[in-house]
Amino acid sequence: MEDWSDCLDVAVQIAQRAGQVVQSAVKQEKRVSSKSTPTDLVTEADHQVEELIISTLSEKYPSHRFIGEESSAAGVKCELTDSPTWIIDPIDGTCNFVHSFPMVAVSIGFAVRKELEFGVIYHCFDGTLYTARKGHGAFCNGVRLHVSKEKDVSKALILTEIGAKRDPATLDIFLGNMKKLLSAPTHGVRIIGSSTLALCHIASGAAEAYYQYGLHCWDIAAAAVIIREAGGCVMDTTGGPLDLMSRRVVAAGTREIADYVVKQLQPINYGRDDSDPDAMA
Amino acid sequence: MEDWSDCLDVAVQIAQRAGQVVQSAVKQEKRVSSKSTPTDLVTEADHQVEELIISTLSEKYPSHRFIGEESSAAGVKCELTDSPTWIIDPIDGTCNFVHSFPMVAVSIGFAVRKELEFGVIYHCFDGTLYTARKGHGAFCNGVRLHVSKEKDVSKALILTEIGAKRDPATLDIFLGNMKKLLSAPTHGVRIIGSSTLALCHIASGAAEAYYQYGLHCWDIAAAAVIIREAGGCVMDTTGGPLDLMSRRVVAAGTREIADYVVKQLQPINYGRDDSDPDAMA
Repeated sequence: MEDWSDCLDVAVQIAQRAGQVVQSAVKQEKRVSSKSTPTDLVTEADHQVEELIISTLSEKYPSHRFIGEESSAAGVKCELTDSPTWIIDPIDGTCNFVHSFPMVAVSIGFAVRKELEFGVIYHCFDGTLYTARKGHGAFCNGVRLHVSKEKDVSKALILTEIGAKRDPATLDIFLGNMKKLLSAPTHGVRIIGSSTLALCHIASGAAEAYYQYGLHCWDIAAAAVIIREAGGCVMDTTGGPLDLMSRRVVAAGTREIADYVVKQLQPINYGRDDSDPDAMA
Repeated sequence: MEDWSDCLDVAVQIAQRAGQVVQSAVKQEKRVSSKSTPTDLVTEADHQVEELIISTLSEKYPSHRFIGEESSAAGVKCELTDSPTWIIDPIDGTCNFVHSFPMVAVSIGFAVRKELEFGVIYHCFDGTLYTARKGHGAFCNGVRLHVSKEKDVSKALILTEIGAKRDPATLDIFLGNMKKLLSAPTHGVRIIGSSTLALCHIASGAAEAYYQYGLHCWDIAAAAVIIREAGGCVMDTTGGPLDLMSRRVVAAGTREIADYVVKQLQPINYGRDDSDPDAMA
């Protein structure tokens, strides 16, 4: 049975190289356009970095498949098959990137037979590298990661992200969920603008739970392996198993905190990543 | 006329020393207790670091006065006179500190004749140092800072913090303000859990505006100088001049964005820093 450790090594190298491209691009003038909504931003750098990652990997692994944020936005069907598949977010936190707000990451996940095998997340501003391979632990710059063991929600720090939909009805549900989690009471809620880095904070034990509606498979893929290997749980917002294409997630250090969060949430429907691309919001 | 540059040099040294103490304390077990509300946290490290800063400075400047977060919580009257006064937050982002969530800072401001003269903010996790002296520019690790020149709110990134009050009525106003600013639309809202570091992001141009009800004079003092010297504006939430003791602030890169934010906000009353300490929430 293949252990995919050679692919992980390649993923680390390419994530660091891509991260350095992103870091240089931060200092340059950015041409910004929008995708599904006026606040769903994309820059030339997103396209360039995704092209860099996919061209490098597809040359090395011609039989592998790729799911990438910008390829998907361009209409490539977002489909997870049994083939070895790389799931790539070239710039997670594009809005932060546009503002040079220092929370931006490259995320590379890898799945085989629809199972996530490893994940690599590179923080483009401070160079922190998060890695994990199924069954072999999670690491930050080579140091073993462990989730928070806190079970008491009143001592929990909760992370979330806003999502691209900003219509009044969606905002009411988003803010209602936030109110419930602030009222628990918890220690607080944070919104940093990068789903992947927020999920890395769950893996490192710096926060107890993360929830979001509206993220994509490329935001979750790498982080899910990292959190699980750090001892945490990643699940659907209903409490069932994670569905990578469902555009929703709850992650936590302990099952107790995850269950609490699941019970508070009112859902926001963002559709699925593997539906008709034209229908994606 | 004194230029206070010797005091600024001392402030930089002591902020870095204090920041290193905070950084070591992050790795240790923390004894956490609460102050005004269950989510207004304090640790032994907050007291130790404030004591370190004030004892060092008062030995060097015996005639100077001090306003410190933990001394004020312990009942020392929070009073700004004409005397040279150091305004100190030993650990801004105590809740983040408790969780090892990597956004924590030491903040030291300095006022003479009730005018802010300089400010120093040290990011305890990544060692970033923000400094500014009135009339001499603002700097991050020695590099000149400039605010964002964006005037169009639809391209703005907005920062805020939640505040310690979590009763349903306060949360409704807090979330209502957030909804208005998300609906503008803006690019987004971020909550990182450290007022001083959020304000430094305004100074560096990484975000366009910051607003908050419920912060304290030690959260604003140093940052106000840094933002003004980076070309930005710091004002009351009504649009009038900043009142350091009013527990509310709007800061922005441009007057246009500041005015927009001011118009959206519904106030939350947190009382004043210079009222009877027992009345503080």
